[in-house]
Amino acid sequence: MPEINERDIAVFEAGIKLGALYHQFAGTPINADTVDGLERIIEDSIGVQPHVRSVSVSIDREMVEKKQNPKFGYCELEGRMLHVSLQVLYKNVIATVELAYDEGLDYPMMSVKKIEQM
Amino acid sequence: MPEINERDIAVFEAGIKLGALYHQFAGTPINADTVDGLERIIEDSIGVQPHVRSVSVSIDREMVEKKQNPKFGYCELEGRMLHVSLQVLYKNVIATVELAYDEGLDYPMMSVKKIEQM
Amino acid sequence: MPEINERDIAVFEAGIKLGALYHQFAGTPINADTVDGLERIIEDSIGVQPHVRSVSVSIDREMVEKKQNPKFGYCELEGRMLHVSLQVLYKNVIATVELAYDEGLDYPMMSVKKIEQM
Amino acid sequence: MPEINERDIAVFEAGIKLGALYHQFAGTPINADTVDGLERIIEDSIGVQPHVRSVSVSIDREMVEKKQNPKFGYCELEGRMLHVSLQVLYKNVIATVELAYDEGLDYPMMSVKKIEQM
Repeated sequence: MPEINERDIAVFEAGIKLGALYHQFAGTPINADTVDGLERIIEDSIGVQPHVRSVSVSIDREMVEKKQNPKFGYCELEGRMLHVSLQVLYKNVIATVELAYDEGLDYPMMSVKKIEQM
Repeated sequence: MPEINERDIAVFEAGIKLGALYHQFAGTPINADTVDGLERIIEDSIGVQPHVRSVSVSIDREMVEKKQNPKFGYCELEGRMLHVSLQVLYKNVIATVELAYDEGLDYPMMSVKKIEQM
Repeated sequence: MPEINERDIAVFEAGIKLGALYHQFAGTPINADTVDGLERIIEDSIGVQPHVRSVSVSIDREMVEKKQNPKFGYCELEGRMLHVSLQVLYKNVIATVELAYDEGLDYPMMSVKKIEQM
Repeated sequence: MPEINERDIAVFEAGIKLGALYHQFAGTPINADTVDGLERIIEDSIGVQPHVRSVSVSIDREMVEKKQNPKFGYCELEGRMLHVSLQVLYKNVIATVELAYDEGLDYPMMSVKKIEQM
């Protein structure tokens, strides 16, 4: 197979960011009032890492409300609550990847959506 | 020794919150631009947990700037960067605890500062 | 109220350890084959922290098996899967605390079980 | 650019695993006695995730000993202590990636080492 190229590295870097984000923030205590703030800080935190061109995070409010403990009024951020769209720019290649809950598989699925030359 | 009382539980709950906060957020990518936002979301996240009366988080900006990787422009949140003051209210008891970097011991020290009856 | 004493600190330290353990290890990928090893390393990791006299961790195998994704064959460690019994020794005081899933509240509950003078 | 292919996905999956591992286990309390056990459980935990063909983790004992707090006898696992070699097999493609501390950059660097067709 051909040598490692810019495309490989762009996709690799995008994978790193999704894995990092997931395992850094899953477990954070959360309720309906803190969802907005948490979305922004996840975006900002991942945005400071190398080669990140853009990142957009949304947390499923319905799931948060359903999971909130009735007595204590909060739950924990779970991977399946996260919808993330992220772009890495490495040299001239843009890799767009996604984290989205797959209901059929009951699994927070990470996937490559698009690879472009700038 | 006497039975477990409200004072014990207040102090115990305060310990839980500091341990949780530390191990949830240490490792978060951070730079000078994201310090403010991260302080607020740590406060908000810990604030949703049971019995928290107040929580104030500040991150040592000097340490962040010194630790920022020159090439990549960010570092990771470390326990020693955190200064946290937290109050738990359990029934009629307020426990005030702190996380602060102890330079002599080079250690992020957690301690009980005050215990009051409301 | 009286000054902060050894009993307060013992209970506080025990709370720290449970909070730390929970937020450090929740989210770890796990399946039936790795349960034993993960139990031991959680014990060992928490055991190196100050004032820990003993710690015993068990992970609910039934929950792990039920939560394992059928396609991918693993799940993530959740707080509710954990049963932890932990003793802190501070000076002459032993505080015994517990993390256990409370089915009624559907909540991983942390509590103080006993406080003794050595 | 061509459609997303097996090679892209293999490299992407390998990136996910390194990012996940790093942010799941960094922060774990550690000392010289627990290094071996922690290496094994990181390998086992990452090994249960999809498409992992092999994973080998070693923790820099010298760094651990140097970082151990003299009073408390432990430190926390840092990304720069980790050396990880990991292979993902996706369909017929094997991606070999690495996490290794780059002294020159003072940075825990993740990189793609090889991409092969089976």
